Amino acid sequence: MAYQEFMIEGRNAVIEAFRAGRTIDKLYILDGCQDGPMATIRREAKKHDTLVKYVTRERLDQISETGKHQGVIAVAAAYEYAQVEDMLQAAREKGEPPFLILLDSIEDPHNLGAIIRTANLAGAHGVIIPKNRAAGLTAVTARTSAGALNYTPVAKVTNLAGTIEDLKKEGLWFVCGDMDGTPMYQLDLKGPMGLVVGSEGEGVGRLVRERCDMRAAIPMRGNIDSLNVSVAAGILAYEILRQRLM
Amino acid sequence: MAYQEFMIEGRNAVIEAFRAGRTIDKLYILDGCQDGPMATIRREAKKHDTLVKYVTRERLDQISETGKHQGVIAVAAAYEYAQVEDMLQAAREKGEPPFLILLDSIEDPHNLGAIIRTANLAGAHGVIIPKNRAAGLTAVTARTSAGALNYTPVAKVTNLAGTIEDLKKEGLWFVCGDMDGTPMYQLDLKGPMGLVVGSEGEGVGRLVRERCDMRAAIPMRGNIDSLNVSVAAGILAYEILRQRLM
Repeated sequence: MAYQEFMIEGRNAVIEAFRAGRTIDKLYILDGCQDGPMATIRREAKKHDTLVKYVTRERLDQISETGKHQGVIAVAAAYEYAQVEDMLQAAREKGEPPFLILLDSIEDPHNLGAIIRTANLAGAHGVIIPKNRAAGLTAVTARTSAGALNYTPVAKVTNLAGTIEDLKKEGLWFVCGDMDGTPMYQLDLKGPMGLVVGSEGEGVGRLVRERCDMRAAIPMRGNIDSLNVSVAAGILAYEILRQRLM
Repeated sequence: MAYQEFMIEGRNAVIEAFRAGRTIDKLYILDGCQDGPMATIRREAKKHDTLVKYVTRERLDQISETGKHQGVIAVAAAYEYAQVEDMLQAAREKGEPPFLILLDSIEDPHNLGAIIRTANLAGAHGVIIPKNRAAGLTAVTARTSAGALNYTPVAKVTNLAGTIEDLKKEGLWFVCGDMDGTPMYQLDLKGPMGLVVGSEGEGVGRLVRERCDMRAAIPMRGNIDSLNVSVAAGILAYEILRQRLM
């Protein structure tokens, strides 16, 4: 991905970006806005010598990509995609078995952001998305990730199935979410693990599913078909964490 | 809640509403739309003698409350709120210990819908929301619940803390999500249970939290503060289900 300008909107997202050491090129702040979080943002801006422009609500609304700027928009260098190798390196440095989350055709940037957020808290070392038919690291994704995008690397690969084959050579096992699979509690998910999650409508594509070593089903006791995809990803990721903690 | 008109938007939501036996007063369909799901909707409409109006995309956009009608909007009787007693009755009839989900100040209708969806699949017997500072059963909630609102009852109460006291007399135990609580895997969550989930920013309010018997923490391994609230609710609800299945 080319290095380019990028908006970070909302107070928490901007504060997190400063704290994570991200370079902010420029800050737009609603003129007259004086509350606590905004004072924190001003202090960070001063510390980092960031250019601040005080503007009207109309101007902020105009600049905003998400419509939810909460009075502040930062213009930063774009999030850069990571390499899969960096994620394995991070796991090695922490002395943990690698835990990666792979997303097959998740096209909604809100879902992508929520899953990056979950990946961060469940202790995953990175998120891998395919180049085609996938949401990217947009302002909406960054905002929904609630700052997790500053810590959890995201890699974009040409071919998920190929990446799975490569990672198997590194010792990873792969488990995909699949309604027709084995109840997740009965699987051994403690080793070096890639969790593959598909879209709500279609699940994980056949080519990718066939490369997985295990298929994990979330128990379903109700009347409808499926969970929201970011909720499903959260439940599966936390089952992996639970087994690692036991 | 008074009986009033209510929109159901999107193909799956409309099909689910028909299948759940909900009374549809009128159906708006995009003129010329001929695909499979739409044929199913037409068949259901014919079977139920529903009035169908074929309209332009502009007209549909105008009627739509969610902006995501996918070519079809049904006008139905509003979802009616259930009584808490009905939920206990449903649990008795199924021979299961009651499992209720209580939401403290969840104001986003998308989150409410996603949690109703999770409640349905995790086997909860109902969702309880407070009258004030809460999202209600709007079109957005219905759509995000992916049909679960047709099966999982939702009750609205004046005072969550009071409802908790009443339900304790019925033998329920209460656990709330709380970052500073005991790791959820160490708690015994198998009995008749009320799960209380609070908003992302503030968590569960003090008055409600003090009435809970247990505080459950989801393990957090990352750098940021909190999970998305519907993801957190999903992880907690599925920990209860996991313990029940063991």
